[in-house]
Amino acid sequence: MLTGESLIAGERVAGTGRVVHAFAPRTGAQLEPGFPMVDPGQVDRAARSALEAFAQLRSSTPADRARLLESIADAIEALGDALIERADAETALGVERLRGERARTTGQLRFFARMLRDGWGTGARIEHGDSDRRPAPRPDLRLRMVPVGPVAVFGSSNFPLAFSNAGGDTASALAAGCPVIVKAHNAHLGTAALVADAVADAVRAVGMPGGVYSSLVGDGAGIGQSLVAHPAIAAVGFTGSRAAGLALVGVAASRPAPIPVYAEMSSVNPVIVLPSALDAERAAGYVSSLTLGAGQFCTNPGLLFVPVGAEGDRFVGHVSETVRATSGATMLSSGIRTAFESARDELAAQPGVTELAEGLAGTDDDAPAARVFEAAAGELIRRPRLQHEMFGPAGLVVRYDGTDELRAAIGALEGQLTATVHAEDDDHVTLAELLPDLERIAGRIIVNGWPTGVEVSNAMVHGGPWPATSAPHTTSVGSLAIARFQRPVSYQNVPERLLPPELRDANPLAQERRVDGRMELP
Amino acid sequence: MLTGESLIAGERVAGTGRVVHAFAPRTGAQLEPGFPMVDPGQVDRAARSALEAFAQLRSSTPADRARLLESIADAIEALGDALIERADAETALGVERLRGERARTTGQLRFFARMLRDGWGTGARIEHGDSDRRPAPRPDLRLRMVPVGPVAVFGSSNFPLAFSNAGGDTASALAAGCPVIVKAHNAHLGTAALVADAVADAVRAVGMPGGVYSSLVGDGAGIGQSLVAHPAIAAVGFTGSRAAGLALVGVAASRPAPIPVYAEMSSVNPVIVLPSALDAERAAGYVSSLTLGAGQFCTNPGLLFVPVGAEGDRFVGHVSETVRATSGATMLSSGIRTAFESARDELAAQPGVTELAEGLAGTDDDAPAARVFEAAAGELIRRPRLQHEMFGPAGLVVRYDGTDELRAAIGALEGQLTATVHAEDDDHVTLAELLPDLERIAGRIIVNGWPTGVEVSNAMVHGGPWPATSAPHTTSVGSLAIARFQRPVSYQNVPERLLPPELRDANPLAQERRVDGRMELP
Repeated sequence: MLTGESLIAGERVAGTGRVVHAFAPRTGAQLEPGFPMVDPGQVDRAARSALEAFAQLRSSTPADRARLLESIADAIEALGDALIERADAETALGVERLRGERARTTGQLRFFARMLRDGWGTGARIEHGDSDRRPAPRPDLRLRMVPVGPVAVFGSSNFPLAFSNAGGDTASALAAGCPVIVKAHNAHLGTAALVADAVADAVRAVGMPGGVYSSLVGDGAGIGQSLVAHPAIAAVGFTGSRAAGLALVGVAASRPAPIPVYAEMSSVNPVIVLPSALDAERAAGYVSSLTLGAGQFCTNPGLLFVPVGAEGDRFVGHVSETVRATSGATMLSSGIRTAFESARDELAAQPGVTELAEGLAGTDDDAPAARVFEAAAGELIRRPRLQHEMFGPAGLVVRYDGTDELRAAIGALEGQLTATVHAEDDDHVTLAELLPDLERIAGRIIVNGWPTGVEVSNAMVHGGPWPATSAPHTTSVGSLAIARFQRPVSYQNVPERLLPPELRDANPLAQERRVDGRMELP
Repeated sequence: MLTGESLIAGERVAGTGRVVHAFAPRTGAQLEPGFPMVDPGQVDRAARSALEAFAQLRSSTPADRARLLESIADAIEALGDALIERADAETALGVERLRGERARTTGQLRFFARMLRDGWGTGARIEHGDSDRRPAPRPDLRLRMVPVGPVAVFGSSNFPLAFSNAGGDTASALAAGCPVIVKAHNAHLGTAALVADAVADAVRAVGMPGGVYSSLVGDGAGIGQSLVAHPAIAAVGFTGSRAAGLALVGVAASRPAPIPVYAEMSSVNPVIVLPSALDAERAAGYVSSLTLGAGQFCTNPGLLFVPVGAEGDRFVGHVSETVRATSGATMLSSGIRTAFESARDELAAQPGVTELAEGLAGTDDDAPAARVFEAAAGELIRRPRLQHEMFGPAGLVVRYDGTDELRAAIGALEGQLTATVHAEDDDHVTLAELLPDLERIAGRIIVNGWPTGVEVSNAMVHGGPWPATSAPHTTSVGSLAIARFQRPVSYQNVPERLLPPELRDANPLAQERRVDGRMELP
């Protein structure tokens, strides 16, 4: 079934470059087949096909696009266990987690389909004119969101399904009406190819042109950057490391016509425990969240704020005990394991940082033991190095002495995807004081929960101030994610029958619209 | 009344730098008083005060902010004729135009106030949780838009009121809850100071801290760029030249934490005349739009597409005749006049460009005659130089031979604020064919009208693809402009009484909200 090819505009095409392989993280074994990387001419072909397909996709109705998204979800499910098995072989994330991730992925595709079917993807607004107004008549103005054009999507390492070939960026771009070209992640090339074929089947099944979707094998620095630089590309979705994200931001900004890069880059997701919440159950909950998926979540809680004093000491003792009882899980690749260990060791070597506890290593080379460290809040404030992301199962417990020091430490934090507070009623005054501070640094605030687990919802923000993302006004999860791939166009005095259907008075597409200032439901 | 001072956090403060003056365009006379430029320490003080004031402004209610905007409108009106006289002395735009612009400015402030009072400025969304859901309970998630932080606004030369100290950027930033620091435009320093004082009075009257608003005198390259680089600044609004806009984009991108620049830069606003619309009235209408305000509008129709052939020739003849009968109006400054003449002469020197007609010069040195030139569509396609903006009363008539050539020429255009088509019913098939092409290059499409005149409306887009703006997903006019200064924050399982009021179930602020997927009106 897997032929080692890329997918360009609905057709499997062999790359002409160096052959790359995925590897089995548990054994280090090279997985077949090899995938030759595409060449710049093939990038160009994919981009041109996307631009051609855009002409049709942009004039599709919301219902057409809903059908496409639903067909993709169906086609992914039809891949059955073969997909789960290949994904597990390539990522070692485990069958159960991957089944859950598949459900999330298909659920997300159908979630965007539902939004389109419910009539609120196009942001339509109508302001009727007034030809009698003096001194100047008021024009008839109508606004809708249009798709920006072909979107380049970079598959992430840690979500081979939900943030990769048919993940959130792809789903929201297609929902907006933008063709997608994925740069498949080299760590799960087989999973990417299976999903790409499923998407291509779905595109064909709904009668759309193949250029609506391509999936290319290549290196990020070469093929990935040449894709971002291609004049046909209008926007970029990326989830990954800060270095790779910033490189893409740089390429996009230096194009003759710059384009936006929606990069979700790095976050240490502070969790603050207030004095009323220092119980053993939460200590264990923290360690579960820290070590979930070998700590390979962008919402991994890398910083845990605990008060100084005896009760805080006891809480930290529970954290340490729980960590010691954990076993290391296999990481996504030996490269990721190496990067994790070097970030962790660099933290360990910082003055003021002490090691609290180490868990047990896993059974293979790439399953490092979990570790927790400790430092005083003052050290965190003085040394920005202490808040660098460690992508893996390691955390820093930060001890704070009272609310003022806690707030000072929060004020010293970079932008974050999430910020979490644990507090019982006794601490609600403090919690209320903290909320505005947390709003300024994070895209999502969680009370008495854990940041891992990102619900696909109309009210989700998976985003946040720089450097958590390169575009703090957006989210990459939830229905608001569609806005990244849309821009507004206004129509002034355009004759009714030439207007886009969502802007005609009769509302033939049954869209939710703001008419003369007031929302009208379909 | 005018003391030559800047306004920092509600107080008049003398700059310590070089003294700059506004000049009377009609006479070249230097206008008193001189305004010393602020120094970097004063920029820092304004920025820090803004950040301090942000703590209060961000927790204000929409009604509080509505009151602030309305008070500013009242205070501007209370300035009476003194404002109009000073603005006319500094810009030569004429008393009638400036009264209209004042009405637009105060109307715009009240427009944003109305949106806030009507309860739809905060983008609230609520998704109730489901603690019984298996395998994982569904969290309670609530989302609202929060203000991004202090905003730097650059006053424009051509709208001393509507796009300057209390113009669209200021109004939308304050509506969002962001303090504003204006870099006053040096061409109308007195107008800027009068308006700044009015805003400061209004801020005081509603009991908000002075840091909510500052207005600084300085040069763009020095003081302006240091303002954009200041860590307290979270976003930038700019209307002006491409060179200045790109410089600010560069400064913002190279900050340790980059911020968005909403720059509206340059546009030649193509107007397409289809064969059914070649009448003398439209020819005259075009010349009116081209020469309105001495051609100093960002929506000035710099390109006019006219079919080849006898009827097109006759139409172009009408254009030429009308141009010959126009008298030059005084431009905003001799610098702008010089820049206009050099752009115009550069166009005139291009191969394939011929001069069609020249109007009469005005009575003073800075009132150049209107001019129109002509070139074949093929020339425009081959030579990008032909679509450079000439900021002033000069246009290029582009002759096209059939719809295919017209579409090829549209495809060769850069991003635009507007695109206009004149067509009667006979040409509606062609018009329908053109609309998708125009959507791709412009933020606003106008039928049988003129691009000058930008209605403040819920359905207005004053924006467009690069290089018309640096942020094609936004508009700088209309209610959607508020989104530039907001970002979404999500609240997960936050106790009801600690939620921001717009997200509490009881909806105490009477906000329009999306609840469990469905819009609910207050």
